[in-house]
Amino acid sequence: MSHFTSRIYNFNAGPAMLPTEVMEIAQGEFLNYQGTGMSVMEMSHREKHFQTILDTAVQSLRTLLNIPERFGIVFFPGGATLQFSAIPLNYLQPGEFADFSETGVWAVKAMAEAKKFYPNVQSVYDGKPNAYTEIPDLTEADIHPGAKYLHITSNNTIYGTRYSEFPKLSKTPLVADMTSELLSRSLDLNQFSVIFAGAQKNIGPSGITIVIFDKEKLPEVKHPIPNLMNYALMEKNGSLYNTPPTYSIYIAKLVFDWLIKKGGLSVMEKENEEKAKALYDALDASSLFYAPVPKKHRSVMNVVFKSNEPKLEAEFLKGAEENGLAGLKGYRDVGGFRASIYNAMPKSGIDTLVSYIKHFESSKA
Amino acid sequence: MSHFTSRIYNFNAGPAMLPTEVMEIAQGEFLNYQGTGMSVMEMSHREKHFQTILDTAVQSLRTLLNIPERFGIVFFPGGATLQFSAIPLNYLQPGEFADFSETGVWAVKAMAEAKKFYPNVQSVYDGKPNAYTEIPDLTEADIHPGAKYLHITSNNTIYGTRYSEFPKLSKTPLVADMTSELLSRSLDLNQFSVIFAGAQKNIGPSGITIVIFDKEKLPEVKHPIPNLMNYALMEKNGSLYNTPPTYSIYIAKLVFDWLIKKGGLSVMEKENEEKAKALYDALDASSLFYAPVPKKHRSVMNVVFKSNEPKLEAEFLKGAEENGLAGLKGYRDVGGFRASIYNAMPKSGIDTLVSYIKHFESSKA
Repeated sequence: MSHFTSRIYNFNAGPAMLPTEVMEIAQGEFLNYQGTGMSVMEMSHREKHFQTILDTAVQSLRTLLNIPERFGIVFFPGGATLQFSAIPLNYLQPGEFADFSETGVWAVKAMAEAKKFYPNVQSVYDGKPNAYTEIPDLTEADIHPGAKYLHITSNNTIYGTRYSEFPKLSKTPLVADMTSELLSRSLDLNQFSVIFAGAQKNIGPSGITIVIFDKEKLPEVKHPIPNLMNYALMEKNGSLYNTPPTYSIYIAKLVFDWLIKKGGLSVMEKENEEKAKALYDALDASSLFYAPVPKKHRSVMNVVFKSNEPKLEAEFLKGAEENGLAGLKGYRDVGGFRASIYNAMPKSGIDTLVSYIKHFESSKA
Repeated sequence: MSHFTSRIYNFNAGPAMLPTEVMEIAQGEFLNYQGTGMSVMEMSHREKHFQTILDTAVQSLRTLLNIPERFGIVFFPGGATLQFSAIPLNYLQPGEFADFSETGVWAVKAMAEAKKFYPNVQSVYDGKPNAYTEIPDLTEADIHPGAKYLHITSNNTIYGTRYSEFPKLSKTPLVADMTSELLSRSLDLNQFSVIFAGAQKNIGPSGITIVIFDKEKLPEVKHPIPNLMNYALMEKNGSLYNTPPTYSIYIAKLVFDWLIKKGGLSVMEKENEEKAKALYDALDASSLFYAPVPKKHRSVMNVVFKSNEPKLEAEFLKGAEENGLAGLKGYRDVGGFRASIYNAMPKSGIDTLVSYIKHFESSKA
């Protein structure tokens, strides 16, 4: 039974912990937003208060990520899964193809979805033989001639890997699914044609996806695209082609405000690296637990770890739950444990987890 | 400037007013859901607490609408617009077509979207010459031979019309966009093959759409369908093919609980009819205002009205806003006024609006 009287450390992979400061603001104005007499959830999307929220969200995101003007920013409904269909439909003409770097389930799923419409899609890397614990070092030489773009998953939530450096492509456009790491580090947008991220990790509630794309590199395709997948149409309408998930955009806006107040992404990046280092250091020093991912490929957002004695796993998880450390169970295909430590996870959460790991280990010595 | 210290009567067409009781429950457990130490917004969609919310929502909806077991119930991301693409893609083979009853902008948009993929779609009714103030009386004889289904918009938010009786079709499947009226009245699901509704009127936050479809009548199509539009796939996965808009489903679940507590849809239907009657009666008795829709076609959810003296419109709206009656401006293509009086609008809101109308009128006499 659940019994916590206050908020706990939530290591869920997504939907995930959101900043308590943000949640308190949202709670405070839940019934009556800034004297309007209604919740943001009850407000017309065509009305000035919501338009201000949306405009501020877009502008803050542009500032935070230093997004050049030639990039459009759109809040799409649905998760990254909708983009797995939308990107090929927007970027490939019939008979064309793209390359995919298969660093995990999400890249594999994205490739399978594209293949339904474009049977010639190709793989440039298959991480399955290494149980997806490594990230390839890709360059233009790895791209199949004629590929219209390369699709990567920049951070692999399930396996705890990430591209520390992105593929350096001299001509092929790069498309990056950044669902589990967008806003956790600074980026040079000039390296990408499209980046996208489902919101439920570092941004806000599940059910919206942020798409940032270079408008100059969007081709004109002749085939029909469903309206809610059409990049040009959605961008032209400023995310308001139809009624968007307004409340989710509002929470995202509050998260962006919070990030700006914290000092932006360079501050966040440093904090995230320190948090991840503290946890990986503890695991590397442990004789009971270990991180299976080689150091250079380790994610800063999702720390996957295992025990040398799998029979202790259930006890470890039960004790963690009782101590207010939730969501540490590993993904079903991987087993073991996973601590997702997104922006909202405070350093104190890492410290508490590290203490618990050490305490558990010494109790078994 | 906004200045309300408590909640007001919100006549927005959608996103729209939600029951204050529901909003208070959500606010109370916003930071810590039932002792879990986290918000529903921060909870894994694969975790037992959210699964219970989802299962309860589906079961409550089945109870409320008396939905036969052969119908699947799916929470889709996006609005009705996504279904405008999804329905033809799921129900039509290449070269086939469907019929559309054009009673307003949404039916016209749905037809245009279907036409992109299926150029042979047909119209059985065009309400444009009558400014969409009427609803046709359709039977099987109106259907074009070979049409695979008839698409209707059961309630037309913009024009304030509705099908009091649904088309009586002896063999052609009926597909109904019920976005602005689902849960406002009892239905006999046996009349339909598919009903769907964006949530932002009677159900909850924008960004989810409920689709209820007869699984026995879903054809097997050979062409690829984007995964997030695939009815069979989404139903088989119980709305969890990918991460759904979890918080929106939670609010919907609370709204369903509220409806059940109120006595269900027959009670709600009676209340809605009384609310609409009180407002239409006041308009019909007025010499300054009038409802342009003929009585038999009037919506119970969206009451459109106009003034004989259009120059007074701005003053009427300004006074309404100041008195805590928000969202009464008519849709841009229609002008005048519109009071959207969904389930969450209490009778006291209607009474206050009627008093204001009478007061305004007498002040001009």
